[in-house]
Amino acid sequence: MAKLSLSPANFIGVRGKNIISFGSGEPDLPPPSSVYNILQKYKDFKYGLIQGDKKLRHALSTQYPSSDADNFVITNGASEALDLTLRVIANDDTTISKKVLLAKPFYYSYPRLIEFAGLEPVYINTIEGRIDIEDFNKKISNCCAIIINSPSNPTGRVESIENLKEIEHVTKKHGVYILSDEVYKDLIYVRDNYIIKGSHVITINSFSKTYAMCGFRIGYLWSSDQNIIKNIIAMKTHTSMNTNISGQAMAYEATKTPKKFIDDQLQIWKERKELLYHGLVDIGLELWNPEGAFYMLPKINNPEQFVWDMFNKYNTISYLGDWFGAPERVRFSYALDINKIEEGLFRINDYLNKKRKI
Amino acid sequence: MAKLSLSPANFIGVRGKNIISFGSGEPDLPPPSSVYNILQKYKDFKYGLIQGDKKLRHALSTQYPSSDADNFVITNGASEALDLTLRVIANDDTTISKKVLLAKPFYYSYPRLIEFAGLEPVYINTIEGRIDIEDFNKKISNCCAIIINSPSNPTGRVESIENLKEIEHVTKKHGVYILSDEVYKDLIYVRDNYIIKGSHVITINSFSKTYAMCGFRIGYLWSSDQNIIKNIIAMKTHTSMNTNISGQAMAYEATKTPKKFIDDQLQIWKERKELLYHGLVDIGLELWNPEGAFYMLPKINNPEQFVWDMFNKYNTISYLGDWFGAPERVRFSYALDINKIEEGLFRINDYLNKKRKI
Repeated sequence: MAKLSLSPANFIGVRGKNIISFGSGEPDLPPPSSVYNILQKYKDFKYGLIQGDKKLRHALSTQYPSSDADNFVITNGASEALDLTLRVIANDDTTISKKVLLAKPFYYSYPRLIEFAGLEPVYINTIEGRIDIEDFNKKISNCCAIIINSPSNPTGRVESIENLKEIEHVTKKHGVYILSDEVYKDLIYVRDNYIIKGSHVITINSFSKTYAMCGFRIGYLWSSDQNIIKNIIAMKTHTSMNTNISGQAMAYEATKTPKKFIDDQLQIWKERKELLYHGLVDIGLELWNPEGAFYMLPKINNPEQFVWDMFNKYNTISYLGDWFGAPERVRFSYALDINKIEEGLFRINDYLNKKRKI
Repeated sequence: MAKLSLSPANFIGVRGKNIISFGSGEPDLPPPSSVYNILQKYKDFKYGLIQGDKKLRHALSTQYPSSDADNFVITNGASEALDLTLRVIANDDTTISKKVLLAKPFYYSYPRLIEFAGLEPVYINTIEGRIDIEDFNKKISNCCAIIINSPSNPTGRVESIENLKEIEHVTKKHGVYILSDEVYKDLIYVRDNYIIKGSHVITINSFSKTYAMCGFRIGYLWSSDQNIIKNIIAMKTHTSMNTNISGQAMAYEATKTPKKFIDDQLQIWKERKELLYHGLVDIGLELWNPEGAFYMLPKINNPEQFVWDMFNKYNTISYLGDWFGAPERVRFSYALDINKIEEGLFRINDYLNKKRKI
């Protein structure tokens, strides 16, 4: 792999015995064991409904206000939910503006998905990893949609409810869609999740983070706008048809998991966060205190050299901040166990110490 | 459901005890039992490689000439393989023409996928359900790609090897991509499949038809063009990430199925084809003799009334030829057992007899 070709695709799915990966954003602890039980006697094989299994959609509707099964579409992960929604908005004749607003730093797929759909990304400034609401107010009226991602990948920051409500209100006034990517909604350390609401909102979510089901690719979207739901189903009929049926059956099992599972997971994430955060602070790095998700985004001198050297010389994977619109930084995921985080911190410290001595 | 809203999405996944469905194109007989066995102890949950499981890609490479695992991408069914390929071609700066050639009648998703990608469908005339090669030669040089689907859904016809070789040769000369949708390659009654080859070819295939795995959505594409493979992986990294991991593990099991499974299936399809074909001829309908896949496309007077009445008054699903670019016809899939085909023929005959008496 040449240094120039560095991209997330080089690291996703890459595993090895001595590798410490602060890279990919996927839980390392397994899903609830009940989700595997339904596979024992699984015998279905035919096409499912394009919109997704009705039992699963019904179970999800109990988690969202004023909802029923018709308000959901089950997708190949949150990725496909975002892709379909952006494509449907782009294909709608009533969409005049081609601009989609999003905060910078951003999840690396957002600008690409916006561009793939024939739309144009416009960036909002952030203050300490959170949306600069003045900048939002300046730019929103010229856009067809905004992507909100709170808690944020890669900053780990959570927007204030006050700001989310302002965004909800202002977008409604201007007739701008909100795509609210809430895949980390169950991983917030500072408060409960606030579900953004309104007829102009499409909420994107998934079973990947809450239930550690990344590989099964079960995501979904929720909207009270039946027109956008209908258009998304019409597109998915051609672009991928139903989402994998056994994966959906597993996801339905996951919806029955006692809340204790999620609470216990959150406790584990908190411990890891504390360890890595204080570890990085002790090493002398400048970073924001994470409030949700499982990422930190410290400043690093010469980040490209850091990511490359840590991978090649220290078997340690981290992601370039540049992929997330934060060129002075490096993203660390803490989806790995305490021992590995400690070993990783040791390696980072060793590398940076040697660097300082040069 | 209002008559005006009739579309395939109304019927996909619709099942009922007394319903006879000549609609959806999915095998009714189950996959090889071995594909379920691997689910007994299945415990993986992490992201897989975006390109697809390497063991699965390696197994596929033994079925294609001069290939290795690098020539394949595993996708969410053939649908996603087609969608990604068209989008990548549309996004390539070196693509000058926006026109994609395809035969009419066509699989109903093709024109929509072409348009979703920002490209423009151009149709080739057919003669008795097969490509009119003169018309192909007239139109090909102005296109960036052609979609070939032999055996064809919905005509059930198979292109001659002579014509496929001419298409292979002429497209290469003009630098036009071939997207060869060969999902029915194992369901040909008249000869072995001919794999279209060349550095300008992307072959699309799936486990849905051969192994009755429609609901699991495991498709793939094969190409010797490493540049297009790379660009497709780069796009899929954002639009859906890896294909469902347990579905891929099931597909890998399917690749080990003895050839007898496929031969036995083909025998069953042949019997059904004979029954339905002669049944429809006896009823007095005009249709082409099917050579592959599991569809027939007879002419019907007032097809919209036929599809609507058969569904509402006779609990019998058929698909409007108009969805496939054949407005004078109706598509029948014969993916249902002999008894049901007989009952379905009885219902069709009854309806048409009553119509004739009016």
